[in-house]
Amino acid sequence: MKLEEKEEVTLDAVDMKRPRNGEIWDFELDMPMADGGAGVILGLDGGTTSTVCICMPLIPFSHSQPESLPILARAVAGCSNHNSVGETAARETLEQVMADALSKCGSKRSSVRAVCLAVSGVNHPTDQQRILGWLRDIFPSNVRLYVQNDAVAALASGTMGKLHGCVLIAGTGTIAYGFTDDGKEARAAGAGPVLGDWGSGYGIAAQALTAVVKAHDGRGQDTMLTSSILKTLGLSSADELIGWTYADPSWARIAALVPVVVSCAEAGDEVANKILLDSVQELASSVKAVVERLALCDGKGAFPLVMVGGVLEANRRWDIGKEVVNCISKHFPGVLPIRPKVEPAVGAAWLAWNFFMKECHREICRS
Amino acid sequence: MKLEEKEEVTLDAVDMKRPRNGEIWDFELDMPMADGGAGVILGLDGGTTSTVCICMPLIPFSHSQPESLPILARAVAGCSNHNSVGETAARETLEQVMADALSKCGSKRSSVRAVCLAVSGVNHPTDQQRILGWLRDIFPSNVRLYVQNDAVAALASGTMGKLHGCVLIAGTGTIAYGFTDDGKEARAAGAGPVLGDWGSGYGIAAQALTAVVKAHDGRGQDTMLTSSILKTLGLSSADELIGWTYADPSWARIAALVPVVVSCAEAGDEVANKILLDSVQELASSVKAVVERLALCDGKGAFPLVMVGGVLEANRRWDIGKEVVNCISKHFPGVLPIRPKVEPAVGAAWLAWNFFMKECHREICRS
Repeated sequence: MKLEEKEEVTLDAVDMKRPRNGEIWDFELDMPMADGGAGVILGLDGGTTSTVCICMPLIPFSHSQPESLPILARAVAGCSNHNSVGETAARETLEQVMADALSKCGSKRSSVRAVCLAVSGVNHPTDQQRILGWLRDIFPSNVRLYVQNDAVAALASGTMGKLHGCVLIAGTGTIAYGFTDDGKEARAAGAGPVLGDWGSGYGIAAQALTAVVKAHDGRGQDTMLTSSILKTLGLSSADELIGWTYADPSWARIAALVPVVVSCAEAGDEVANKILLDSVQELASSVKAVVERLALCDGKGAFPLVMVGGVLEANRRWDIGKEVVNCISKHFPGVLPIRPKVEPAVGAAWLAWNFFMKECHREICRS
Repeated sequence: MKLEEKEEVTLDAVDMKRPRNGEIWDFELDMPMADGGAGVILGLDGGTTSTVCICMPLIPFSHSQPESLPILARAVAGCSNHNSVGETAARETLEQVMADALSKCGSKRSSVRAVCLAVSGVNHPTDQQRILGWLRDIFPSNVRLYVQNDAVAALASGTMGKLHGCVLIAGTGTIAYGFTDDGKEARAAGAGPVLGDWGSGYGIAAQALTAVVKAHDGRGQDTMLTSSILKTLGLSSADELIGWTYADPSWARIAALVPVVVSCAEAGDEVANKILLDSVQELASSVKAVVERLALCDGKGAFPLVMVGGVLEANRRWDIGKEVVNCISKHFPGVLPIRPKVEPAVGAAWLAWNFFMKECHREICRS
């Protein structure tokens, strides 16, 4: 087993970086020098609302697919989208959640073989490089590091780690991301609230808040959203909504109003219904743009559409996810909707496993 | 001259507060004890882009209208909308710009008789009370303090200090505000970018940025905005727009792209034209909502519409302000558009003068 030999050598040669943030990595000081196993992999899903880190054992070549790997530990932290909370906060959140996961399963950084960090806000190679730099500061130099947009992990969570087909995420934010079998990729939306992600939870809620303001000042029709939202927020007048909105710039705080909008729509409110119908069109148009650009579906050909996020998961009478699929299948009858059984962070860990195995395979073939 | 006697007494009895912020008010230490005049008034216009402070002499009863009062000093600072820059920064900006204006004309706080602070972000009586508290910390207790939404000063700048008719502001933000002769008031919009101010400079620019992202990812049609905006910002790809947008949350920075949108519309770009046409509809609907709620125009009756802000002032082929007036006059033929000859900060100073004179008149009648 050439790979295992290589791993042991690497383990001894670990050039352990000094803790960048003393408190976060203090737990390592009380642990034995090396755990002697084949090591662990970390999968992270950093969304706009929360960040999840999954730790799995590596167990190379004992399985041909990663989905039977056990989960050793799971840790959760807040938002790690640097566009939303800023770079310092995003970086600290990521470091803390990885430390928590490793500490929970009694591992330390010297046991880590690969990390796949899938985080929202990765929109450009420079974002990827900057975040890779953060990880390089944390881990020994032999650790394989992969940084992806969080949509990629969500796709992997529905396709057992295979990058093929399209994923649609609609939680606080929204993005559609797709891959062809030969590695071409494309995305649509995912540009945040300023740049037109109107199908997202934030988009839906911001439009509902706007509808309340417009009904109040005479620009829009009356809507049940007014009493429902004011009651939910404990406010007495629509004028107070402005102060409430700008008191805290968190996107997730606004997006948390989506269930109120769905309830009003289910109760027959015309304004709330229009907001949800518009959001369905926006979400479907993101998927259509990706499928067309990648030619994922030539006429009747089937392709997986992995659907992730609170906006799509709402199992209510007004089912946004179902409406989006109906809308897409009119253009692409081969769409195969998949609701993943595992969370995106597990998808990220499976990706780390796949990337790592491919690299090792390539190295073995070369040697 | 009963009032002047009263003023002199008050001047001697000034309970000068200690400087809250030493550096800002240091200039007062080198000035003589009292200037002996009738005192000065301050008018402030705090918008989302900049804050202007005007200092005028009081000269009570020497004029029946304030518009012939000379301007003693003018000072400018940055944004003082607490919803945009936060409370601490807003407060410091206001204090600094008032100190600058007083220092420029050789007056100090003990000479001030009245301050009218018209600032964006005043949306609720609690905002007004909080900002009055800031001013009370700065000035002696005898100074008359008035806090208004910045739209009120803009209206006054076009009506010689009289609160009657409607004002439409469209700069970085937008708001419509109206008053009837008997003191009823109403507003529409002015709720900021999250809450649907789509006719504002920020709204126009954000929609243009969204159009570029949508054209890039396949959701929208191609537009000249792509090359024009990327060139203006020195970016090489639409992917970089996301990083640029969230690198700095300033609304004014986004709104500065309006001239690019107007240029593209003038060059015949369909997408840019649609954005401007939508903005005209949004702005007109704000005015219509105010005029209807106040019944400012019963059929053919005339009413002033004061128009203020960069979006409306653009004297280009694509004249947004002219289109808004055309749109409004279809519903209210009595609309009398006014482009003020003085800036809103002067309107705020005139308001301070009017408020002060009314209060003194009331006190004299009572005594």
